[in-house]
Amino acid sequence: MTRHYNFCAGPAALPSAVLERARSELLDYQGRGLSVMEMSHRSDEFVAIAERAEADLRDLLAIPSHYRVLFLQGGASMQFSMIPMNLLGQGGSANFIQTGVWGKKALNEAKRLGFACHVAASSEANGHTAVPGEESLTISDDAAYLHYTSNETIGGLEFDYIPQAIRVDGNDVPLVCDMSSNILSGPIDVSEFGVIYAGAQKNIGPAGLTIVLVRDDLLGSAPSTIPSLFDYQLLAEAGSMVNTPPTYAWYLSGLVFQWLKNDVGGLEAMDAMNQRKAQKLYAAIDGSRFYSNPIARQNRSRMNVPFVLADERLDALFLREADEAGLLNLKGHRSVGGMRASLYNAVPEEAVDALIAFMADFEQRRG
Amino acid sequence: MTRHYNFCAGPAALPSAVLERARSELLDYQGRGLSVMEMSHRSDEFVAIAERAEADLRDLLAIPSHYRVLFLQGGASMQFSMIPMNLLGQGGSANFIQTGVWGKKALNEAKRLGFACHVAASSEANGHTAVPGEESLTISDDAAYLHYTSNETIGGLEFDYIPQAIRVDGNDVPLVCDMSSNILSGPIDVSEFGVIYAGAQKNIGPAGLTIVLVRDDLLGSAPSTIPSLFDYQLLAEAGSMVNTPPTYAWYLSGLVFQWLKNDVGGLEAMDAMNQRKAQKLYAAIDGSRFYSNPIARQNRSRMNVPFVLADERLDALFLREADEAGLLNLKGHRSVGGMRASLYNAVPEEAVDALIAFMADFEQRRG
Repeated sequence: MTRHYNFCAGPAALPSAVLERARSELLDYQGRGLSVMEMSHRSDEFVAIAERAEADLRDLLAIPSHYRVLFLQGGASMQFSMIPMNLLGQGGSANFIQTGVWGKKALNEAKRLGFACHVAASSEANGHTAVPGEESLTISDDAAYLHYTSNETIGGLEFDYIPQAIRVDGNDVPLVCDMSSNILSGPIDVSEFGVIYAGAQKNIGPAGLTIVLVRDDLLGSAPSTIPSLFDYQLLAEAGSMVNTPPTYAWYLSGLVFQWLKNDVGGLEAMDAMNQRKAQKLYAAIDGSRFYSNPIARQNRSRMNVPFVLADERLDALFLREADEAGLLNLKGHRSVGGMRASLYNAVPEEAVDALIAFMADFEQRRG
Repeated sequence: MTRHYNFCAGPAALPSAVLERARSELLDYQGRGLSVMEMSHRSDEFVAIAERAEADLRDLLAIPSHYRVLFLQGGASMQFSMIPMNLLGQGGSANFIQTGVWGKKALNEAKRLGFACHVAASSEANGHTAVPGEESLTISDDAAYLHYTSNETIGGLEFDYIPQAIRVDGNDVPLVCDMSSNILSGPIDVSEFGVIYAGAQKNIGPAGLTIVLVRDDLLGSAPSTIPSLFDYQLLAEAGSMVNTPPTYAWYLSGLVFQWLKNDVGGLEAMDAMNQRKAQKLYAAIDGSRFYSNPIARQNRSRMNVPFVLADERLDALFLREADEAGLLNLKGHRSVGGMRASLYNAVPEEAVDALIAFMADFEQRRG
């Protein structure tokens, strides 16, 4: 068995220790004679797994008790519909900060569903290479919430601040954040948010699970005519088990939470490791005349590092040689080309060191 | 490691051979140095896995080429919303045959969303112990489709015929079937249906995946104001990858399809085995004065066999002793009590033999 270094943007690398644990109990969970996949979601065994996962996540992120934690299906993209359906039940508009592809999708889905939308700020004019300054936010008078994407996975652009969602009339509105690609990369103050959501397949677990944190006061105002599986209140009351949840993904995510707590030592330790990994790679890029990254320094993503070669005719060769060297999935997103190294939690520092060494060697031979 | 006999109604038993295969490549898929869970859904490796799964499913069910196969999230319950949203775009009503809990949920969800609904037949009067005769169907003049649940997992009631969906005016309407708990239990004629859907967690794979077969002519009439992840046309065009699909559940389902083809020998062989398993268990129940099942013989489910003891005060003891004997998850659904043995494809005939022997022994000792 070989484990290569995997820089995939998602579904992304999982900690080897988590996969080894999953393998050891795949056919027989703790002597019960069956797999976690084969258990009723309402069995004592699975309910204990589910509750433990939630408790560990609450512990890691210090989630206040007036927030619900939902374990859902459909990906972050399903939240693009669910959020306006839940939060615009009393009217008003959805406000958005636009910093790239995923924020645009969230905006377009709310528009598609017929909701009033307002762009409070956008980095489109600079090609999404720098996050709009906080002073440039213009939140509409009818804003019911402000949505942003804390890390744009494709562009490699990350917020260096938490926006203050204050309308011209001085009223706060709930802040809603798509944290799919940087949740759990370090500590956050959950109490600054109304809703935080994230597809699992970067820093949480396998694809097919979506985590949503919702502040209690935002439950219960959805119209009774939306799909029942979209209603945060119903989902919260049922402990995310209105119907059968994705049990195995939930279990694996719980193993990742345990890994973060016990093996890594919590989110401050994870944050320090992520800072180090990203700084090393950006330093290598900046120190070269062959590689470059276009993002403003204060907004460079710690999770997704896009870069281009000085000569794009070498892209295919770079990718082939990297793959042969056990450095997998460095191809940039099909919409932008070039390279992208995703440095999620489960990507070890040695992987970054190996990538930097390969890049230097490639530059020397081919640059 | 121990593998007990698992009679869970869902998430249900998976073939041990499938889990062993998954275990062997959990950390390293075919020498690529990463898990299937860690692959981009757009990678060559995963696309090959996904296409192979679809091809094998098409082969097993002889799915005609004018049907799309979708691999979705949300469970069968999400289809309770998606179906009317997709099929009632041109108006008309949803017609339902009601034979138990799941059919009722499908009806209630369509009502909740504000769609016109009509009950074409119901077995409520007989306590859902016999499927309504085909001659009793009254399909409304404005019917856009007829929905039924081919096997009611909780009640243990299975259709012994495929309803003809013909309106009084003589026009056919598409037949829509929730096959969650009996799909792949034997051959079916897909061409009789407009839509077939099934949550994976009984006969397909782990929870978190839903398979939908849709006839081509039913695509493309959804209003453009429904969530984009609900639109069959968009999902079909994107090969079920509008966003990241539940890749690992898709892969495991593919392994189940290969097991059905190669180890079992196809759906006719599976059908014969399922008939044998169910006949044995019903014969044991009928041959006893201690156990009973209320369902009309021609509608007894081959998949879910509910039964009660003559003295319900013995229920807890029966369940405890069964569990100790390695016969797991025989408790009836919380809404009906008693016992339920689910005999899905992955439950081997030896499991049924062991259950019957245990039941006879228990009756002799305690009956």
